Amino acid sequence: MIIHMSKEATPEQTKAVFRRIEAKDAKYEVIHGTTGINVIGVLGDMSRVEESYFSELDGVEKVIRISKTYKQISRQYAHEGRIRDKETRAIRVKDAVIGGSSLAVMAGPCSVESREQARAIAAYIKDTGVPIMRGGAYKPRTSPYSFQGMGEEGLRVLEEIRQEYGLAVVTEATGQHRHVKPDGSQEERTVLENVVAFADIVQVGARNMKSYGFLQELAMLTRDRQTPVMLKRGESSTLEDFLLAAEYIVANGNPNVMLCLRGIRTFEEGKFQRYTADIGAIPVLKRETLLPIVFDPSHATGYRRNVEAVALAAVAAGADALLIETHSDPTRALCDGEQCVTEEQLRALLRRASAVRDALNQAE
Amino acid sequence: MIIHMSKEATPEQTKAVFRRIEAKDAKYEVIHGTTGINVIGVLGDMSRVEESYFSELDGVEKVIRISKTYKQISRQYAHEGRIRDKETRAIRVKDAVIGGSSLAVMAGPCSVESREQARAIAAYIKDTGVPIMRGGAYKPRTSPYSFQGMGEEGLRVLEEIRQEYGLAVVTEATGQHRHVKPDGSQEERTVLENVVAFADIVQVGARNMKSYGFLQELAMLTRDRQTPVMLKRGESSTLEDFLLAAEYIVANGNPNVMLCLRGIRTFEEGKFQRYTADIGAIPVLKRETLLPIVFDPSHATGYRRNVEAVALAAVAAGADALLIETHSDPTRALCDGEQCVTEEQLRALLRRASAVRDALNQAE
Amino acid sequence: MIIHMSKEATPEQTKAVFRRIEAKDAKYEVIHGTTGINVIGVLGDMSRVEESYFSELDGVEKVIRISKTYKQISRQYAHEGRIRDKETRAIRVKDAVIGGSSLAVMAGPCSVESREQARAIAAYIKDTGVPIMRGGAYKPRTSPYSFQGMGEEGLRVLEEIRQEYGLAVVTEATGQHRHVKPDGSQEERTVLENVVAFADIVQVGARNMKSYGFLQELAMLTRDRQTPVMLKRGESSTLEDFLLAAEYIVANGNPNVMLCLRGIRTFEEGKFQRYTADIGAIPVLKRETLLPIVFDPSHATGYRRNVEAVALAAVAAGADALLIETHSDPTRALCDGEQCVTEEQLRALLRRASAVRDALNQAE
Amino acid sequence: MIIHMSKEATPEQTKAVFRRIEAKDAKYEVIHGTTGINVIGVLGDMSRVEESYFSELDGVEKVIRISKTYKQISRQYAHEGRIRDKETRAIRVKDAVIGGSSLAVMAGPCSVESREQARAIAAYIKDTGVPIMRGGAYKPRTSPYSFQGMGEEGLRVLEEIRQEYGLAVVTEATGQHRHVKPDGSQEERTVLENVVAFADIVQVGARNMKSYGFLQELAMLTRDRQTPVMLKRGESSTLEDFLLAAEYIVANGNPNVMLCLRGIRTFEEGKFQRYTADIGAIPVLKRETLLPIVFDPSHATGYRRNVEAVALAAVAAGADALLIETHSDPTRALCDGEQCVTEEQLRALLRRASAVRDALNQAE
Repeated sequence: MIIHMSKEATPEQTKAVFRRIEAKDAKYEVIHGTTGINVIGVLGDMSRVEESYFSELDGVEKVIRISKTYKQISRQYAHEGRIRDKETRAIRVKDAVIGGSSLAVMAGPCSVESREQARAIAAYIKDTGVPIMRGGAYKPRTSPYSFQGMGEEGLRVLEEIRQEYGLAVVTEATGQHRHVKPDGSQEERTVLENVVAFADIVQVGARNMKSYGFLQELAMLTRDRQTPVMLKRGESSTLEDFLLAAEYIVANGNPNVMLCLRGIRTFEEGKFQRYTADIGAIPVLKRETLLPIVFDPSHATGYRRNVEAVALAAVAAGADALLIETHSDPTRALCDGEQCVTEEQLRALLRRASAVRDALNQAE
Repeated sequence: MIIHMSKEATPEQTKAVFRRIEAKDAKYEVIHGTTGINVIGVLGDMSRVEESYFSELDGVEKVIRISKTYKQISRQYAHEGRIRDKETRAIRVKDAVIGGSSLAVMAGPCSVESREQARAIAAYIKDTGVPIMRGGAYKPRTSPYSFQGMGEEGLRVLEEIRQEYGLAVVTEATGQHRHVKPDGSQEERTVLENVVAFADIVQVGARNMKSYGFLQELAMLTRDRQTPVMLKRGESSTLEDFLLAAEYIVANGNPNVMLCLRGIRTFEEGKFQRYTADIGAIPVLKRETLLPIVFDPSHATGYRRNVEAVALAAVAAGADALLIETHSDPTRALCDGEQCVTEEQLRALLRRASAVRDALNQAE
Repeated sequence: MIIHMSKEATPEQTKAVFRRIEAKDAKYEVIHGTTGINVIGVLGDMSRVEESYFSELDGVEKVIRISKTYKQISRQYAHEGRIRDKETRAIRVKDAVIGGSSLAVMAGPCSVESREQARAIAAYIKDTGVPIMRGGAYKPRTSPYSFQGMGEEGLRVLEEIRQEYGLAVVTEATGQHRHVKPDGSQEERTVLENVVAFADIVQVGARNMKSYGFLQELAMLTRDRQTPVMLKRGESSTLEDFLLAAEYIVANGNPNVMLCLRGIRTFEEGKFQRYTADIGAIPVLKRETLLPIVFDPSHATGYRRNVEAVALAAVAAGADALLIETHSDPTRALCDGEQCVTEEQLRALLRRASAVRDALNQAE
Repeated sequence: MIIHMSKEATPEQTKAVFRRIEAKDAKYEVIHGTTGINVIGVLGDMSRVEESYFSELDGVEKVIRISKTYKQISRQYAHEGRIRDKETRAIRVKDAVIGGSSLAVMAGPCSVESREQARAIAAYIKDTGVPIMRGGAYKPRTSPYSFQGMGEEGLRVLEEIRQEYGLAVVTEATGQHRHVKPDGSQEERTVLENVVAFADIVQVGARNMKSYGFLQELAMLTRDRQTPVMLKRGESSTLEDFLLAAEYIVANGNPNVMLCLRGIRTFEEGKFQRYTADIGAIPVLKRETLLPIVFDPSHATGYRRNVEAVALAAVAAGADALLIETHSDPTRALCDGEQCVTEEQLRALLRRASAVRDALNQAE
């Protein structure tokens, strides 16, 4: 850390800073300005010390952090190791690999609505070669009057799909304790327990990215089996907050985290786009962390007709995987139908996404 | 709802819209444009139907909702009743009333750090006449390496304060299942159960505003005693989402909800301000809902030296209550010290806030 | 400036930084980290050197500016002088003072539409005691098909008003060269020349805040008479950019600048509010600069029914003046009618705003 | 337009709406709700009528525009014509075509700094096959103390380049009247006149996108020769505002407008990215308008190391052209050096961008 003292800082105020540094077993050096000590450089590990530990002291003008606050997921701290410069930690899920040299794809409906719907979609997904199906059994919805997911019953449908089609399944866990069924009674186990017991990949939704207690529990429940976790970026979280949320899971014992970008909230919200696709975050995250990057073009734009262009952009920018909403009959979807692509659109998208990925692999 | 059909819509597409309307037991009327049916007006209660139910159909250009999606908390639906135009539902907490004609104040530290710290702050809060103390026992923190709150031990400290000083207490519940203690073990009851069993007002933090399952559970756990809930606005949630989150709690049985504004995330984040104070939301919420409005100037700006100006602005704009962070020794606070005002600053702020409120009451 | 070198920086890279510092006639001191020179402190005036002068060099990790980039308008650089801590530079406009101890008000329509409209409004403005009338003769409009202002004809109407009612006039200059009349021909003089020749206060609109060449010219044209300039904040400009835009005018010879806040663009744009009122910017600007602060509640919210609450908030937060849109018949306004208050609303607003200001003056 | 009346609207209020419709020579139809006339559909051309013409009337709840406000550039109004569904208006500039089936590229420094710098860059640009060079002679800068461009002298350098290397030149015009030289004197002609007289493509910068008078003048000055104009999106302008700004130029006589996306301002601004790349705007604009789309990855991210990924994303999403900042010695650039790619990086980027474009052309 670098601490910039104000011009008016008294020697006592400067000493108070020194004492705090020493209290953390660190050393310091100083730079003198024209009116006294101007800059204090802290030497030692400050990664677990907050800026405010110093900035709240009188006479301190500004505190600048140099070391990263996220450590275990950082490329910087890892690169002495086995993983080379552009490589990413590869996460294996059944037959698929996320983070390898080829593009991984997960596709499926926003939520499981019925056995028939889920099977119809699974059938064509399987046929296109997509190895992982998405589908929510627990759906956090903005309105209390909207469909909230099938709950355990939905997980059972997904289990059948998994058996019948040999697809891996990614599904969302929520911070809710126990799901309320349509009849008003509650399920016996918590949503988290249910999902962790079932999923091949546990999805953490954007709304829960900052539910830190939930992230901690999730890590504790999955650390034995190291079930992969797909963490979605909060709609207004900075990249640093996003990385720290991943650090929560890794620091609590589960290193198999993939980061999913899904659009951020900006003034652009409206009739043309629901969210802004944060494409530029891809090269940043690739440089900052070893974790693989998933991109969700469906939520990143909000409208079916923009999904392909945004998906191709994500692949070109270096995403390791795509997460795509598709529905056999988008106009009957119980949730987010507007952003679901049809089977036909999915096939075209996959074909072009592969073409882009192949072209870039060759042009490397 | 009003449904605008595209110029190219076929008669079949228009019929598909009619069928969906009828499936919801509603009626319709149409307006003919130069090239056919242009606008369809839906007659009937559409408050539980999402726009996408229609917008996903081919030939539909746009769907415009007319009725509110939030009903139970809406001024519009209530105003035939007992509450007059500018009045707000008053929520009584011990000796204090939030939503009445005078300004209510809650003050205290970000988190309970020790018995000594909590008592020192309680003493001067009490002395200023503030009837409600804030203080977190469970703190969701951005970094996994930051102080996470004292947990049950913190609630015990607050309990002592309540007894000794006769203050009411507002404290935060989080979506986390069971708090992890510093030794790695977990508390026996869930955070929500612990907080609900203790608090005079249960605070829902901005990070959990969209944890809908959590809101549902909270409502179910508090509906018998109707414990007041203070719901903070998510840092990037629209006002409509904010109102719907409140509707979740009310619709699940607890009508005693107060809405707390605390700043939104904009491009303004940085060295001058951490968040943008959403003052303009006050008159909007006062018009849209009957629920009382609390304003948190500490989080709305992020820096101690801006707190008073923002607090006075909130009072002038019509806030029913203020929620203020204060600390007996801000530079030693374990969390958010930079935005805590000192005792002296608190006293000055309260004096001026009262002056503004009184002046406006008289100038009515 | 403080320059933080990366861990991998070579001695040659560090030397390159030294050479650049010396090229600017400055000195430096260094702090050694565990692996070599870690931090370089630059000693000397760097206010005219951009961060990128250093940050673009290899081996440089981060450049942190310490000194302000705006100097002439900064409170920091001025406070040895005559102006005390909480005081603001007072700007006199005829009988009114902006920046003094009482609240100044400017009111009027968005644009001058006809002699009758302007006179009707001037009459009741005068009667309420407001000393300065606003009214646009040149209106930059989002759509090429909207009313673009009366041009020189509008200035002539304002001239009559000024004579007849003894009001001072604030009106907007735009970056446009020569106004295009409805018949397609152009006025003889530039808009800037026309406005500078006429106005008591020249308004720079939010859309032109970053038209730096225009600011330069404006300063050059007004520096002899030192005509006051009211600079509106760009809808997405940071406070630093806003201050730098003011510095452009002052550095080019005209110190009489007042800063006008008018709402910023955030995700909140929509049916409830058009912009977000940047109330928290008031205490920040009061601390950073000596220039007086004007607040425009009409644009800050966009809807008439929110204007009073936002205006009162601005006064409570310390604004020196208000700029309010009013219209004798808002529903017939040719521009921005939705945010104009009526005469009756204006009177109520002024009464309450004075009450707030007086209360705060007394509670000081 | 569709006008939604409030439940409480009186028959007189409804009649007032009818009168306003008739005053615009339009007709209407109505839909009756349970309590009276609920919805009024306006039949007729309302493209030049603002929403507020109706929304300001008492009893009106909401006004919804159906017809586009931008007409001449709209795909919707054009598609009966010669241009087919996915085609774009092709703009020819010397040997290059922007908007055709292949990818066009413009590259060069932020600003012309000297004859040597400009020639060094032109030489390698030419060698890579890029047909259009960018380079600013007039630079609007945030700080009054930064380099403001070489002015006419810079245009003379660009003229030499054009002759010597056979490159077309795109350079920026600003709203400034007459450029101030370093000695304080002013150039004889306006910046706009100088640039229009010289440039192959006139660039309008993001800061001037809303300088409507300037757009009008630009159109009038270029309408005889129909010089292509590249209009950059304002950093916080909505897509609708962006399209309307283009409409200003087209409606005033110059149809050769290309739209340049360059990142928008969001909360993401900071150390990782300066702006947010608005990739999702590409498919939206391609659908809304016939004008070709240029993407500027340099400004869209702000840091050299992210430029390639963002550029490839833009190509994959369907951009017709790229605008790239490059410098022979980025660390010595007088402006925006941090986002300039080197010659080597430019070559790699071009190779991969072509690979992506070719792959997509084949996979069509």
